[in-house]
Amino acid sequence: MYEKNLTMLADFYEFTMMQGYFLNGMHKQVAVFDLFFRKNPFDNGFSITAGLEQAIEYIKNLKFSEVDLDFLRQKGIFREEFLEYLENFKFTGDVYAIPEGTVVFPHEPLMRITAPIIEAQLLESALLNIINHQSLIATKAVRVVNAGAGDKIMEFGIRRAQGPDAAIYGSRAAMIGGCASTSNVEAARRFDLPLSGTMAHSWVMSFTDELSAFREYAKLYPDSFILLIDTYNTLESGMPNALKVFSELRDAGATPHLYGVRLDSGDLGYLSKCVRAMLDEAGFTDAIISASSDLDEYLIANLKAEGAKITHWGVGTKLITSTDCPAFGGVYKLAAEIDEGGSVAHKIKLSENPDKITNPGIKTVFRLYDRKTGKVKADLISLHDEVIDTEKDLTIFDPVSTWLRMTLKGGEYFIKDLLVPIFINGECVYSSPSVMEIAEFSKQDQLTLWDENRRLFNPNLLPIDLSEKLFNLKLEMIFEFDVK
Amino acid sequence: MYEKNLTMLADFYEFTMMQGYFLNGMHKQVAVFDLFFRKNPFDNGFSITAGLEQAIEYIKNLKFSEVDLDFLRQKGIFREEFLEYLENFKFTGDVYAIPEGTVVFPHEPLMRITAPIIEAQLLESALLNIINHQSLIATKAVRVVNAGAGDKIMEFGIRRAQGPDAAIYGSRAAMIGGCASTSNVEAARRFDLPLSGTMAHSWVMSFTDELSAFREYAKLYPDSFILLIDTYNTLESGMPNALKVFSELRDAGATPHLYGVRLDSGDLGYLSKCVRAMLDEAGFTDAIISASSDLDEYLIANLKAEGAKITHWGVGTKLITSTDCPAFGGVYKLAAEIDEGGSVAHKIKLSENPDKITNPGIKTVFRLYDRKTGKVKADLISLHDEVIDTEKDLTIFDPVSTWLRMTLKGGEYFIKDLLVPIFINGECVYSSPSVMEIAEFSKQDQLTLWDENRRLFNPNLLPIDLSEKLFNLKLEMIFEFDVK
Repeated sequence: MYEKNLTMLADFYEFTMMQGYFLNGMHKQVAVFDLFFRKNPFDNGFSITAGLEQAIEYIKNLKFSEVDLDFLRQKGIFREEFLEYLENFKFTGDVYAIPEGTVVFPHEPLMRITAPIIEAQLLESALLNIINHQSLIATKAVRVVNAGAGDKIMEFGIRRAQGPDAAIYGSRAAMIGGCASTSNVEAARRFDLPLSGTMAHSWVMSFTDELSAFREYAKLYPDSFILLIDTYNTLESGMPNALKVFSELRDAGATPHLYGVRLDSGDLGYLSKCVRAMLDEAGFTDAIISASSDLDEYLIANLKAEGAKITHWGVGTKLITSTDCPAFGGVYKLAAEIDEGGSVAHKIKLSENPDKITNPGIKTVFRLYDRKTGKVKADLISLHDEVIDTEKDLTIFDPVSTWLRMTLKGGEYFIKDLLVPIFINGECVYSSPSVMEIAEFSKQDQLTLWDENRRLFNPNLLPIDLSEKLFNLKLEMIFEFDVK
Repeated sequence: MYEKNLTMLADFYEFTMMQGYFLNGMHKQVAVFDLFFRKNPFDNGFSITAGLEQAIEYIKNLKFSEVDLDFLRQKGIFREEFLEYLENFKFTGDVYAIPEGTVVFPHEPLMRITAPIIEAQLLESALLNIINHQSLIATKAVRVVNAGAGDKIMEFGIRRAQGPDAAIYGSRAAMIGGCASTSNVEAARRFDLPLSGTMAHSWVMSFTDELSAFREYAKLYPDSFILLIDTYNTLESGMPNALKVFSELRDAGATPHLYGVRLDSGDLGYLSKCVRAMLDEAGFTDAIISASSDLDEYLIANLKAEGAKITHWGVGTKLITSTDCPAFGGVYKLAAEIDEGGSVAHKIKLSENPDKITNPGIKTVFRLYDRKTGKVKADLISLHDEVIDTEKDLTIFDPVSTWLRMTLKGGEYFIKDLLVPIFINGECVYSSPSVMEIAEFSKQDQLTLWDENRRLFNPNLLPIDLSEKLFNLKLEMIFEFDVK
């Protein structure tokens, strides 16, 4: 088993700030933090949020041990009264979040934490770590799966993942993104995922000859076996030996559920065509061809376009590390403070870069769907207590190019509030679906997008707007600072 | 605390192959596997090996639980006798490895595992995961540290790391690579690392004004405080307020050990020069300027070249994910088998790509140093039982361009066998140094390189050759396959 407590997975400044709030008597001041990102990775048309289950576990398990407190004590800057506070630390706030697998867009709060500032501050780095990682890999997986256009994508990344967690949670996220299976036994055990695998070169090399290696493997796993045919020479040794074994099994009346070969080097396009022809000629039209070797969505799309005869793709390094964009830029920003009487002070972070100016206030995200097609028309980031009457016309506008306007006719659209309650007053009120349920939900949710939004390159971008009320609040706050 | 067992962190094919070896009665056959890589990441002139301590823990903790075995049983393809074998699984073999922090090169065995093939096969994916990750981040850190040219590099990556382990072990590896400190409290606690941190925008925003936020922080941590000055406007708000606080403290007679400001947005080069001038003019010549914001070795080198006045660099995303090359391509390949009488069968994996042909046999790495300067002349990958008489001349040659030859004069060089025993007959015989000891060792080891090898771009590459005996063995084996 694999249990852990990540209470100390925090940046040091979180502790110095927490003590600051504590000693200044500010620690009970309620703060609202948003966890959001500013840009889709890979210039994708959307992202997939993932990691909420682990974020929940993290919050539930928050507890400082004596070892933790001793470590902090030794730093010589923390007062005993603050360490005592930590000893009894418990998260008492509210968390709202967008469920895992949901299609999400820049600037939308994926999580909204409302809690005494001393508590909310502690959560920053760990929540970002968890959500950033899994959202990144889930989004990458969606791209690889879409490039496969119905083929099976097998997640093969343990050996190149950035540490054990990156392999385990990366595999989880890859399944949320639509992979058909993983080779990661620990991830499969923990999250009940479909497993797949073939054989390694060492299996072939540990026999005196390739034919014996293939024969023994097929004998052991007659219902499902994939022979790795490139240890010595794919077309001149691997294929003839594989065909011999397939023939022997056919002669013996075997009817495997899944059998075939794996290509792991050489030109996968060319080899797959040769191999397909050899298999078909020998009557093994149902034998599958799988491939691995530095694959990603770009190479898979290319190979498919040139007619490669591969239907099962083992994707390792470039999926599990998200090679061409290995970080999801989620941030955690203060949006409001609530005083004891319940009145809200909006907070904004300014910047010379307009995209880095935060959206103030307690917010939610309304997704607007076309009633006829069920497709998404736009998202509207709004103040959390705004009410939209869907029987009335709704005019929305781009928050940068404000002349870009769209009116949804009353009665022709419906809305969904994306944020759902996860913790209320420190109690978890949410039960995470299984990973395969999340994957199915995500698949359906992606179908509410238009094909144009799902393109690999240069996708059409849906309007992600601010409600008029939020837009005006933001402008006012920016002007107010300018005047100072 | 944070305890874990990674026994099931394996690719599924490892279990199907293990059962294959077991049922074929091959499982006691002793195999020799090499863990090596084929290319330095970032086109660096060398790499740093790291992660051995975690690899050792992993091997020591190997133990299948009932839950693990039940999971495998449910797959319906594993026989009870094999599951019983797993129940009593224990690693009984030998492991040799190159100690952490050592400068290493492509094709050198970083680890050599000699064990019954069924045991050695299980270790493949987890060892690769651990060594690949930490070696990658340690090597990246060396580059960032070298770009800093004596400045302090602070590791700030938790929030963008690929999961909790990537943050924790990534921080460990970054320190091995020469970072001065980390912001990661869990990593610091676990590995006794120097911590550093400043403040977040939320601290500043949670006060009614910036000046109060700065003043309170400085009052709390008078010995060491860095003020984040970009929440509203770096030069027009942050700096005047910071100077006010510095002056107040000076007037009160305070003598902080470390104080200064942090830039986190805008043009760091320009701002740092303005800020330095403002600090100096006010007499705060000892105040430091730190910076963060998507930094990496390229940007740091550039900023330093243009005269930026930054001496403390907080490096997050691009170090902890190794953005421009997020995977270290380590592989685990069968090199030999040893029968009960002790005779060795060499194993080779062929490929159309010459760089992918493995080096057969039980090998070690001799590092050849110039006696006068102590600098490395070359590495020689050799069969493990070769003896080099350093009193005699030694001629070495490039294994590809064999006409490239170099003769080391007898008496003018000395050698070091890089691989040291870690496990013997399943017992760990090695005690890992502390992370900071490894970091110091690595710093010294890097000084045995020439400046030309350590360049950020287009470094000079040291000769990494094969011994004549190993070269001839490899050629013979390639020709032998050709004839077949």
